Amino acid sequence: MNLVLLAASDIIPYTSKALLRGRRHAHVLTVHRARPGDVLNVGLEDGKMGQGRVLRLTDTELEMEVAFSAEPPPKVPVILAVALMRPPVLKRVLQTAAAMGVPQIHIFHARRVEKSFWNSTSLAPAEVREQLVLGLEQAKDTVLPSVVFHKRFKPFVEDALPDLLQGRRGVVADPSGQPLSGEAKGPAVLIIGPEGGFIPYELEKFLAAGCVLAGMGPRILRVETAVTVFLSKCS
Amino acid sequence: MNLVLLAASDIIPYTSKALLRGRRHAHVLTVHRARPGDVLNVGLEDGKMGQGRVLRLTDTELEMEVAFSAEPPPKVPVILAVALMRPPVLKRVLQTAAAMGVPQIHIFHARRVEKSFWNSTSLAPAEVREQLVLGLEQAKDTVLPSVVFHKRFKPFVEDALPDLLQGRRGVVADPSGQPLSGEAKGPAVLIIGPEGGFIPYELEKFLAAGCVLAGMGPRILRVETAVTVFLSKCS
Repeated sequence: MNLVLLAASDIIPYTSKALLRGRRHAHVLTVHRARPGDVLNVGLEDGKMGQGRVLRLTDTELEMEVAFSAEPPPKVPVILAVALMRPPVLKRVLQTAAAMGVPQIHIFHARRVEKSFWNSTSLAPAEVREQLVLGLEQAKDTVLPSVVFHKRFKPFVEDALPDLLQGRRGVVADPSGQPLSGEAKGPAVLIIGPEGGFIPYELEKFLAAGCVLAGMGPRILRVETAVTVFLSKCS
Repeated sequence: MNLVLLAASDIIPYTSKALLRGRRHAHVLTVHRARPGDVLNVGLEDGKMGQGRVLRLTDTELEMEVAFSAEPPPKVPVILAVALMRPPVLKRVLQTAAAMGVPQIHIFHARRVEKSFWNSTSLAPAEVREQLVLGLEQAKDTVLPSVVFHKRFKPFVEDALPDLLQGRRGVVADPSGQPLSGEAKGPAVLIIGPEGGFIPYELEKFLAAGCVLAGMGPRILRVETAVTVFLSKCS
C-alpha cells in the first residue's frame, strides 16, 4: 500500500481528519508499523493526493490529520476489453489494469469463456471495487476505473464497441496478427480473448468493426501477462 | 498447457513412444480430455518440438507416439536479475520469465528483502524447475532458463554482474530513472529491486558497474508487473 485511499465517508464531517478501521487500519498497523506523528501518503477517492499525519493508532482505529494538494497521475489512453477469466485471474487483471492507469475496463463473454465464470462472486461490485482499490493503492492513484460487464458477445461487439472505437484504434490480440510496432502508442481499445483464443466468427466481428489484429510472436502468454505486455506496448 | 514438455526419461527406451503419469497425465485427461488418436503439441526438454499421437490414455497413464521436427522459438536477448520476492510472487515471476523467453534468471539479495524469504521451500531446485516447466508449457518452448541464486548482494554486484554485463547494457528499474525509450531493445541485463526499492548504496553499486537507471513514470508497479513491463519494453 503505497497510498492510503480514502473515501469521502472516511473523513470526519467538518474536520480535516480521517478515521479508518478494517483492512487499511490493519495494514498501517502491522505492515507500515506506523506511530503517532508518522506521515503517510494518502489520496481522496476520485480526488487529490496528499499526506496524512497519524494522530492516533490503536488496535482498532487509525486517526489521521489529512491534507490534499497533488493531482493523481494521468491515466493511459487505452481502454481494456478482455474476455471473462477464471476468478483468481480476473482479480489480478483488475488490480493490474487499475495500477497501470487504465481508465475503463470492459469484460465480455466469448465462445471459449466457461459459462460458469459468470456466476462467480468476484463479479460482485464490492469485490470488483476491492481489486481496483488495491491496484490504486499500489500505484499511487485515486481515480477508480469504470468496469462494465457484457454477458453477451454480440451486443458487446455490435452496440458497445463502436462507441468505444470513436477516435480510438481497436487492437485485437491474436497470434495471427503482426507484432505491434513502436508506433502503437495513442488512444486505443485493446481487446484480449479467452485462454483458448477467439473463434473465427468473433475475429470477423472485430475486423468488421474496424479493429486490427496484433500478435506477439510465437509465444502464447497467459491472459494476465498478455494484458500487461499489450498495455505497456500501447501506452 | 499448450505443449506437453517431455524429459528424456519420459521416452520408452529404443522407441518413439512417451509414457506419462502424474501432473501432465492428469492435465491431458481432465483438461484436454484427449482420446486415443488425438494429436497433442509436445516438446523434448532442451530439444525440438513436435506432435504426440495418443495411443493409450487410462486413469493412470498416457502413452503417445511422438515425433519432433521444429526448433523452439528464439529466446529474448535479456537476462533478468531480480531481488528475491515473497514465495508466491517468486513462483509467478519464474513462470512468466520462462514463458516470455528469458534465457537466464538471477535472483539476488538486497537490503529490503526479508531475510526469511531465503528459507522458503520454493527455492528448492525441484520447485523452481516446476515453475519454469509451467512457463514453457504455456508459451510452447522447450529450453529451460538457468536460474542462479545470489544470497549476498556484494558478491553478486561486484563479481557476478560484471561478467553478465559483457556485451550487454545494464538497466536498473528505479523511479528516479528516465522512462525507457523505443531504442531500449537489444542485449541487456534487466535489474529489478524488492518491493521497497533499492537503497542508495545499492544504486551506487549498480551505477559503478556501468548500469543506467530506468523509470516507468509516476506509477509504482508490483514486482511481477514491473518484470513483464520491462521485459516487453526491452525485447
